[in-house]
Amino acid sequence: MDSIHTQIVDLCKRARIASRSLVSASAEEKNTILKTMAELLGTQKDYIREENKKDISAGKEKGLSSAMLDRLELSDSVINSMISGLHEVVALPEPIGKVSDMVRRPNGLMVGRMSIPLGVIAMIYESRPNVTVDAAALCLKAGNGVILRGGSEAIYSNRVLAEILQKALAQCGFSRDCIQVVSTTERSAVNTLLEQEESVDLIIPRGGEGLIRFVAKNSRIPVLKHYKGVCHIFIDKDADLEKATPIVHNAKVQRPGVCNALEGLLIHEDVAAAFLPEVYETLVNDGVRLLGCPKSVQLVDDIDSAEDNDWGTEFLDLSLCVKVVSGYDEAKAYIEKYGSQHTECIITENYSLAQKFIREIDASAVMVNASTRFNDGGELGLGTEIGISTTKLHAYGPMGLDELTTRKFIVFGEGQVRV
Amino acid sequence: MDSIHTQIVDLCKRARIASRSLVSASAEEKNTILKTMAELLGTQKDYIREENKKDISAGKEKGLSSAMLDRLELSDSVINSMISGLHEVVALPEPIGKVSDMVRRPNGLMVGRMSIPLGVIAMIYESRPNVTVDAAALCLKAGNGVILRGGSEAIYSNRVLAEILQKALAQCGFSRDCIQVVSTTERSAVNTLLEQEESVDLIIPRGGEGLIRFVAKNSRIPVLKHYKGVCHIFIDKDADLEKATPIVHNAKVQRPGVCNALEGLLIHEDVAAAFLPEVYETLVNDGVRLLGCPKSVQLVDDIDSAEDNDWGTEFLDLSLCVKVVSGYDEAKAYIEKYGSQHTECIITENYSLAQKFIREIDASAVMVNASTRFNDGGELGLGTEIGISTTKLHAYGPMGLDELTTRKFIVFGEGQVRV
Repeated sequence: MDSIHTQIVDLCKRARIASRSLVSASAEEKNTILKTMAELLGTQKDYIREENKKDISAGKEKGLSSAMLDRLELSDSVINSMISGLHEVVALPEPIGKVSDMVRRPNGLMVGRMSIPLGVIAMIYESRPNVTVDAAALCLKAGNGVILRGGSEAIYSNRVLAEILQKALAQCGFSRDCIQVVSTTERSAVNTLLEQEESVDLIIPRGGEGLIRFVAKNSRIPVLKHYKGVCHIFIDKDADLEKATPIVHNAKVQRPGVCNALEGLLIHEDVAAAFLPEVYETLVNDGVRLLGCPKSVQLVDDIDSAEDNDWGTEFLDLSLCVKVVSGYDEAKAYIEKYGSQHTECIITENYSLAQKFIREIDASAVMVNASTRFNDGGELGLGTEIGISTTKLHAYGPMGLDELTTRKFIVFGEGQVRV
Repeated sequence: MDSIHTQIVDLCKRARIASRSLVSASAEEKNTILKTMAELLGTQKDYIREENKKDISAGKEKGLSSAMLDRLELSDSVINSMISGLHEVVALPEPIGKVSDMVRRPNGLMVGRMSIPLGVIAMIYESRPNVTVDAAALCLKAGNGVILRGGSEAIYSNRVLAEILQKALAQCGFSRDCIQVVSTTERSAVNTLLEQEESVDLIIPRGGEGLIRFVAKNSRIPVLKHYKGVCHIFIDKDADLEKATPIVHNAKVQRPGVCNALEGLLIHEDVAAAFLPEVYETLVNDGVRLLGCPKSVQLVDDIDSAEDNDWGTEFLDLSLCVKVVSGYDEAKAYIEKYGSQHTECIITENYSLAQKFIREIDASAVMVNASTRFNDGGELGLGTEIGISTTKLHAYGPMGLDELTTRKFIVFGEGQVRV
């Protein structure tokens, strides 16, 4: 066993032990830690920027793109937004200790369920160092220890941020070990981390598909993952086309580079002639490139023919597949084939079809007459999110504070025995 | 790729496709399937027993113990209990389609969560062929496809039971593929099954620790697992000793071979002299062998000294570890060290300590003044259980029908777009 292995095993064990002190921490104690973190980030801005500059110059030397350098930079405004993010987490309702489903059983036992922390959560992420603060804050509020493993290009930034977070823990009388940072950039550290099922309860990878597939394949610990977002809108024949156009435009154009942006538009053949030319105009004006089925191309000359491998692609840019379909059944079959179980939407005024779509379509969020862009923890009312799960175990869709907890059974008896 | 590999991949894919028809099946349709299964099991008893006899004679040839042969036998009364089990599942409330947490967001969107099936569940289990029927029934009621892989010693029994279940599906107009049986006994079939993350959503292993560790280690699919149950009762100094003795007796003696039976008794030093001799008498009368710490042995001569490796052992027989502790803190530390996060109980009349124990102790069920034997799906009000999870993701504790479902977000809009 080499020293990196030993170091990671030890770090995970210390997180496990320290996390126990958070289980019974009160909401007030946890909020005090978060406020102290915010305060220290404010007073240590110069130190943070100094360390951040080391990453920036290393990145320049390595030839990182200016977009990547941009995401790496901890400017004053980025630090300020981390600080206000911490205050937002303070303001969220306490997720731990809630008791639900309490009933009196026939034998008089009172049985219910209590929200408790998951334990220790490891985040494995790429580039943006602000994840270090955001993720640590949410995990801590939910009473969890956290192990952070950011990208190697942000190592100095992540280290200094973690040091400040740990200082806040210590100032508030908690163990620094509640927040751990993997401070080696060796790849083997991740492999070791993924094997520590005794000490770590959940892995959340955030980054490109390559990272997520690597983590899912090698982890012995449960992984909450999200490969990609291939979202569709189906324009039914009973759609209110005046609602449809702005929704499609918003879903595609407002922020095309994110997972809840629209990638495929399905149009009922009965309204295709009326709708497609109109929506085409609006989209093309904002630079969208449409890739269509033969019928779409027939309806609007300027639409490019889609290649076979365009269908189901997560473009993350201003491209959009368009297909004319014969009705609900074809739309549903298309979504089952090409969708990613992320967000699916129908535009219709038909009550029964709306109910059927909601019931039958399998995606983490299923919508009627609303933009796919609403599949987001903040928009759906979770207050915030630590990621979106497109697998069904534990959480399906945006994960907020409650998804960082679990429930144990609690039983209040008066001497009952089992007969 | 050999033929077993191809066969398993194909079987999983067919389960995935067939399971989609269950997503929108109504409660009535699913209950009709379950009732048809019960009916066919009743009319085909002779056929079942004939096939079962092949397993029994093969088992005798292989030299299985009489206890194992007993568990393998599908006697008339075992078949009848499978039939009544099916009717019990029919009577359970429908778990799919429940909408919860529906709220109106500031922008007018109605956002809620709907219970949906997990998709496809694979059960990997040993010996008892009645699991084939029980597990298939629960998975089906929750709208899931199911893949069953029983022990090789029950292969004829499992095949005939599956054939009958599939016949019921077909009679009711559903695809036989909703219930699949891995009918080869080759080990490599399990390895292939554990890799089908595209087609299978959840693995539930039931059997010995060896099987469960093998599955957990080799699966790319989430596993709901339960290694062992090392349950404790802590007798506090403020315990009502008249409640304590029957609870300890019940927890240890009523059914010592199960996971919620008592394995460790912790006694506050202030009441040890009063309690231990009394509880010792009651336990010894029923054949319990106590293994004690030095103080226990001092209090009751006839208690054997515990060896180091007795502490934390899941005996599954009439052995019981006893330790005198200085108070709550030592009891808690002991439970953290030796417990298995299954069931932990305190006996006390002290209100504040009871609350503290409920809050701080980490186990799937935490109890005050009740027998550990109550940690069971039926007893806790779930109606039934498909297993007990001692890991925290998705489910912690007994898993009933609701734990075989997940929730998707549903959004009813009126043309909203994101700003």
